[in-house]
Amino acid sequence: MTLAVGIGGAHSQQFAAESFTLGNGLQVVVLPNHRVPAVTQMVWYKVGAADGPRGKSGIAHFLEHLMFKGTKAHPPGVFNTLIAQHGGRDNAFTSEDYTAYHETVASEQLDLVMRLEADRMTGLVLDDAAVSSEREVVLEERRSRIDNDPSALLREQLYANLFLNDSSRLPTIGWENEIRKLGTADALAFYRAWYMPNNAVLIVAGDTDPAEVRRLAEKNYGPLPAGTPPPRLRLAEPEHRAPVRLEMKHARVPQPSWRRYYVAPSYDSGAQHSYALQVLADILGGGVGSRLYQSLVLKDGIALSVNADYSPSALGMTVFALSATPKPGNPITDLEKAIDRELHRLIEQGVEPDEVRRAVQRMQAAAIYARDSLAGPANIVGAALATGRTVEDVAAWPERIGAVTAADIQAAARAVLIERNSATGILLPERTS
Amino acid sequence: MTLAVGIGGAHSQQFAAESFTLGNGLQVVVLPNHRVPAVTQMVWYKVGAADGPRGKSGIAHFLEHLMFKGTKAHPPGVFNTLIAQHGGRDNAFTSEDYTAYHETVASEQLDLVMRLEADRMTGLVLDDAAVSSEREVVLEERRSRIDNDPSALLREQLYANLFLNDSSRLPTIGWENEIRKLGTADALAFYRAWYMPNNAVLIVAGDTDPAEVRRLAEKNYGPLPAGTPPPRLRLAEPEHRAPVRLEMKHARVPQPSWRRYYVAPSYDSGAQHSYALQVLADILGGGVGSRLYQSLVLKDGIALSVNADYSPSALGMTVFALSATPKPGNPITDLEKAIDRELHRLIEQGVEPDEVRRAVQRMQAAAIYARDSLAGPANIVGAALATGRTVEDVAAWPERIGAVTAADIQAAARAVLIERNSATGILLPERTS
Repeated sequence: MTLAVGIGGAHSQQFAAESFTLGNGLQVVVLPNHRVPAVTQMVWYKVGAADGPRGKSGIAHFLEHLMFKGTKAHPPGVFNTLIAQHGGRDNAFTSEDYTAYHETVASEQLDLVMRLEADRMTGLVLDDAAVSSEREVVLEERRSRIDNDPSALLREQLYANLFLNDSSRLPTIGWENEIRKLGTADALAFYRAWYMPNNAVLIVAGDTDPAEVRRLAEKNYGPLPAGTPPPRLRLAEPEHRAPVRLEMKHARVPQPSWRRYYVAPSYDSGAQHSYALQVLADILGGGVGSRLYQSLVLKDGIALSVNADYSPSALGMTVFALSATPKPGNPITDLEKAIDRELHRLIEQGVEPDEVRRAVQRMQAAAIYARDSLAGPANIVGAALATGRTVEDVAAWPERIGAVTAADIQAAARAVLIERNSATGILLPERTS
Repeated sequence: MTLAVGIGGAHSQQFAAESFTLGNGLQVVVLPNHRVPAVTQMVWYKVGAADGPRGKSGIAHFLEHLMFKGTKAHPPGVFNTLIAQHGGRDNAFTSEDYTAYHETVASEQLDLVMRLEADRMTGLVLDDAAVSSEREVVLEERRSRIDNDPSALLREQLYANLFLNDSSRLPTIGWENEIRKLGTADALAFYRAWYMPNNAVLIVAGDTDPAEVRRLAEKNYGPLPAGTPPPRLRLAEPEHRAPVRLEMKHARVPQPSWRRYYVAPSYDSGAQHSYALQVLADILGGGVGSRLYQSLVLKDGIALSVNADYSPSALGMTVFALSATPKPGNPITDLEKAIDRELHRLIEQGVEPDEVRRAVQRMQAAAIYARDSLAGPANIVGAALATGRTVEDVAAWPERIGAVTAADIQAAARAVLIERNSATGILLPERTS
């Protein structure tokens, strides 16, 4: 299947995708782009932090680290060395819903990086010494990224308190006390349960063509056996009865800040509102023209910054987020009241068709820029396919965003910006009393 | 093994326990009490709400209801009819850690009620019609006990927000949206996994003797096969970073109220503090002589009532709870400040040896009264054995409580009454604006 995807006109060739599936169930998407003689390979596994067993938070991310520990065919260090020798780059990342590995190399090295990824899809070898030392690396990563960052700490607990039920509540990197107990057997059990060609998506973007990708994919990944991955369990939220408030004081906080998360539907759990919520986020907090910026930063002068964020690519429920930093001297309660006033006005009176039109244009333009790279489209398609959507859904995004109306946005705001479904966090400098 | 348990002197015969284990692993405890010619049989299963699979909250309680749906030998209705015909009473209850079934009958019917309990330990027969109609009964129970009671709703969410990790966070009766999806297969899978003689405790209290109980237990329960129950998973809590606050307004709230829960160790997870915390709860909020009552109700006159509560019988973590109702016209913020002042004073200055002595005497006396019935001692022993303790632990309770010192209590208060490990809930009448 080939899809020419774009906003139209001059851009229509920027996002041509061809996809096919190997006999063992590996889904392959090719995104040709011939501007530089390089290719990016990404292998996305349809498993993430929220798929871990109870009490093993962080296992998906830990396994991501351990995937660089070598196989029988490529002992520890060989993978990175081979890629570096050829001037390539490689890395990996884990979210609550997926785990992805990627390499960018000269086009003629596609065969090599496919061989390496295919090898470690089923051939990972772990021993306790390697697992123990990597656990220290992950604990250090947690310390530097979360424990030393008050904002990250507040975000982590706010998530855990916002969701009453779903595993989205748990941190992707894992709770520190649980990371400490992850062992070789845990990692291998998770690996064997989830890593298999029929639970993965291979994306190749760049200076190649579908026929070549198919030939190399058949050669390298074709021989791997299919398996039976577990079902992916995402729990519905029970009715929330009261909004949650957290106030955290921390010595390393230079100035107060405010944020609020609402439980929100994703593409997966609530297609009805997921496009309108994207436009809503832009209208509320997308840059200097947005309602909250105009009102709080420019008109009232009580905020230094304000932001709205919504990521619809998730299995189960996701988050609609607002955040703001008060101008020094302005109490955070005034800031919160002003935000609530704007939300109330939006929910009661809706938005102007003109605001919608401008937001949609801005978002469509931003999407074009995002697609102007090897990694951009590959990331978009990978996240989509790993969370239950299709290449067609990605292709239809500009059109679906373009179809959002002012009435859709008001309905989405009414459905989602409900106080009792929210968690509000306030970060304050430690009182120096 | 026979244990004569009591405070001593005249009471030493009130709590004589004999225990033994059948060949299939069924633990049996006999608590002879000859004041009336009746016996209470209790069968405690070492499985509760916190042992349910993800997404199936309420399954343990639902199964408790379904256990009255009949077996091949005793079709639906026969169980209750037989017991009622003999003038007996029977019921059941579920907690996060155990599920118990009990009958009180004339002593000569012990054989009958053993036959009935043994039969349904492995012989339960369910069909979809019975399961569907019972699901409606449970949903109605949830509506009347939780959904129609603002205080219960707040408590439910406060638990879910207090614990970041463990399944203690989930309501024993289950989230409404998950109860709706529980089916016959879920109930039978849970039943088959957990209901077996070696995962149960049989307690017989009343007008019988150990030899007779042993003979009847061997006859009725002896033939049942042992099985392999799953491990009971209780998760440690990660570090909490900020206290949680919930404020719930509800039309059915007649007057404001305040409560706060702290994550606290149980006997199982923190033996070090679990006895001192019981005395602490009594000193803080146990009746009109307690610190909070004296200070807030009598001296300051700002509260109508105040209470402290701590239940150490749990697997994993449990809760140390404070609650109070302000005197009409007194703001809840003043009440909270006054409570915080008392907690601060206790943590900083400790308690008086004399307060400890009086609290311990009061608690030991209350324990004697609680034991003065068929059901009292059976309940205490059952809850203990279902949560990892022994009959010896129960026997040693008066002595261990008696050994708690003022220093122990201050240390326990310092370890547990930590703001960031708490969740505070405020219940307010709906504003009539």
